[in-house]
Amino acid sequence: MYSLSVRDHFMIAHSFRGELFGPAQKLHGATYVVDVTFSRPELDDDGVVVDIGQASDQVTSVLASLRYRNLDEEPAFVGKNTTTEFLAREIFDRLARAIHDGELGEGARGIASLRVTLKESPVAWGSYEGQL
Amino acid sequence: MYSLSVRDHFMIAHSFRGELFGPAQKLHGATYVVDVTFSRPELDDDGVVVDIGQASDQVTSVLASLRYRNLDEEPAFVGKNTTTEFLAREIFDRLARAIHDGELGEGARGIASLRVTLKESPVAWGSYEGQL
Amino acid sequence: MYSLSVRDHFMIAHSFRGELFGPAQKLHGATYVVDVTFSRPELDDDGVVVDIGQASDQVTSVLASLRYRNLDEEPAFVGKNTTTEFLAREIFDRLARAIHDGELGEGARGIASLRVTLKESPVAWGSYEGQL
Amino acid sequence: MYSLSVRDHFMIAHSFRGELFGPAQKLHGATYVVDVTFSRPELDDDGVVVDIGQASDQVTSVLASLRYRNLDEEPAFVGKNTTTEFLAREIFDRLARAIHDGELGEGARGIASLRVTLKESPVAWGSYEGQL
Amino acid sequence: MYSLSVRDHFMIAHSFRGELFGPAQKLHGATYVVDVTFSRPELDDDGVVVDIGQASDQVTSVLASLRYRNLDEEPAFVGKNTTTEFLAREIFDRLARAIHDGELGEGARGIASLRVTLKESPVAWGSYEGQL
Amino acid sequence: MYSLSVRDHFMIAHSFRGELFGPAQKLHGATYVVDVTFSRPELDDDGVVVDIGQASDQVTSVLASLRYRNLDEEPAFVGKNTTTEFLAREIFDRLARAIHDGELGEGARGIASLRVTLKESPVAWGSYEGQL
Repeated sequence: MYSLSVRDHFMIAHSFRGELFGPAQKLHGATYVVDVTFSRPELDDDGVVVDIGQASDQVTSVLASLRYRNLDEEPAFVGKNTTTEFLAREIFDRLARAIHDGELGEGARGIASLRVTLKESPVAWGSYEGQL
Repeated sequence: MYSLSVRDHFMIAHSFRGELFGPAQKLHGATYVVDVTFSRPELDDDGVVVDIGQASDQVTSVLASLRYRNLDEEPAFVGKNTTTEFLAREIFDRLARAIHDGELGEGARGIASLRVTLKESPVAWGSYEGQL
Repeated sequence: MYSLSVRDHFMIAHSFRGELFGPAQKLHGATYVVDVTFSRPELDDDGVVVDIGQASDQVTSVLASLRYRNLDEEPAFVGKNTTTEFLAREIFDRLARAIHDGELGEGARGIASLRVTLKESPVAWGSYEGQL
Repeated sequence: MYSLSVRDHFMIAHSFRGELFGPAQKLHGATYVVDVTFSRPELDDDGVVVDIGQASDQVTSVLASLRYRNLDEEPAFVGKNTTTEFLAREIFDRLARAIHDGELGEGARGIASLRVTLKESPVAWGSYEGQL
Repeated sequence: MYSLSVRDHFMIAHSFRGELFGPAQKLHGATYVVDVTFSRPELDDDGVVVDIGQASDQVTSVLASLRYRNLDEEPAFVGKNTTTEFLAREIFDRLARAIHDGELGEGARGIASLRVTLKESPVAWGSYEGQL
Repeated sequence: MYSLSVRDHFMIAHSFRGELFGPAQKLHGATYVVDVTFSRPELDDDGVVVDIGQASDQVTSVLASLRYRNLDEEPAFVGKNTTTEFLAREIFDRLARAIHDGELGEGARGIASLRVTLKESPVAWGSYEGQL
């Protein structure tokens, strides 16, 4: 299995609901470092998993819809705890849709699976991985 | 598949038996950076893989039983080479038992698998991964 | 010159005022990775720059007054842009005061200078450095 | 599953063919940081996945055949785009052959799979993973 | 003293002349991770060392003149060994000129010194630091 | 001022004397990641701070005298706490002597200062810096 990964980051504010979260129930924020891994069994005709330029641009584009936001006020997240794991899945879904819609080019239709990892601090990170 | 990872570290002394190990047959030591990844197919009701506070505390608690020790003198390791791979498995087993015993809470029973990685230097690391 | 450095981190929400800041004028947040370096010309009688346990505890204590806060609502920061550089200086001042007040022990009075670096993302960080 | 990983790096010049690659069609170069992960279900009699010394030496030996080269002039790569993903596979194949030929020792025949990751920059990396 | 640092990277091909350089006398290449640190004794009216957006753009602009090049063919470097230290100085000079020419804004004229660090591999880096 | 830095690492066992050190009074160990920075105002005739090959070899040679040792049994350290800061100074002194003795070549006599940093964990490091 071949993989290609790209890294980007974004900064947001949010708060969590539930005693479990302790002081993180207060409005705070995070810098999320985002690693996206695209995997497929064979390379395309150019010898790549995906056009790294298009892949990076698409990741940047998805993150632009979250960057510098207070996630507590985003309609898409009403009633949700925007935990690291939850956000990884959200970004996974948006990228999967973009691939399906052909936004990473025809060649990208050969991508078999995707993993999205969000690092919230030097000691904690979450991810979501799935088939396309 | 969702994952949550936490990082901690510990420092120990030990030596290895077997010509294979060359100069590492002498008493020396290591700083091990430990990454533990908890995975499960669905998030719990709070939107998390596991309570990150409880997870971190449990990892710290398991590492406390190794930290600042000379592993050559630990009864649990008599006759064993405490290699990086071996220690990854040992920590995996202790964490798996803690999850099974409910020490990470009822929600943690949904955890499907665990991976423990020990980084011994910038150029070498070992891990153990298994189902729960 | 000898130095000892310790690392910790904290997460906050804030916003900036001024066109310069573009989209960062909106409420967002950050994970700040904090490196504090204590320097002095000679080691103390124990052979250290400062007791690393006390140093780490003091850094953690200073960061506790910022952690999980919305800095826009902190009385100490009214009318201020809590930029990375500004926060580095703020933490410097609080640590300098703690050293002066003897909270890191008598030996710590030999510390000659302090540097505080805050990493806000993989591609940007700020610091403040000064004599004590 | 147990794993052991070692890291090395090498520097090369090359260029790519295809509009997809934009300015990277010109002769340029890269530092590749190479992580090789050896995996197997059980440890050998010494308590290791593979002799880390032999593993490191073998990786160094494989990279020596690429290091400080202009890959555009390597007979092995005529008509190929030496992308990060492609090179990961190439190194995988050479290591798999070495293991098969017994160059990592008899114990290494228990290795079940191999993953080779090449980091080309702080924001992009590629890998190839397969069974032996 | 306050500092602000930004990171970027670029990839080039080059070769060195002189027996000292051993195999690096052949055409090869490198990924350089570039850290630029701007320092000044006081923050400007916005509470920053320099507008981080303008600083990042200027660094990117300077690196654009080197990126994806074969440095052996650059007129500016004829008869020079484009070592890591040499390139750090070159980038320093180009940024110093841009600051002097007002390309980072009027506020940037308060910048007192600059440090440019180029990381060529996980085990080697070079830098140049000077007053403005 | 120009600088060149190289990185290596070594693993040792040791213990500390003094209540200050708490559980670290027991025999334990560490992996030390060592960064050595050589600085000088002008480059030599080859366009370098120091021959990176000779510099790396000399650092490796100095570390070889410590690697895989129990520092409590080293005659050179009798009655000393081999703290991170102390070891940084020790390595500084050994490298300074090697430069003075011409072991890094005649060109290396232009080196003006040296900094040695030892990272003992992801959250703690010490260093010693001085003129030559």
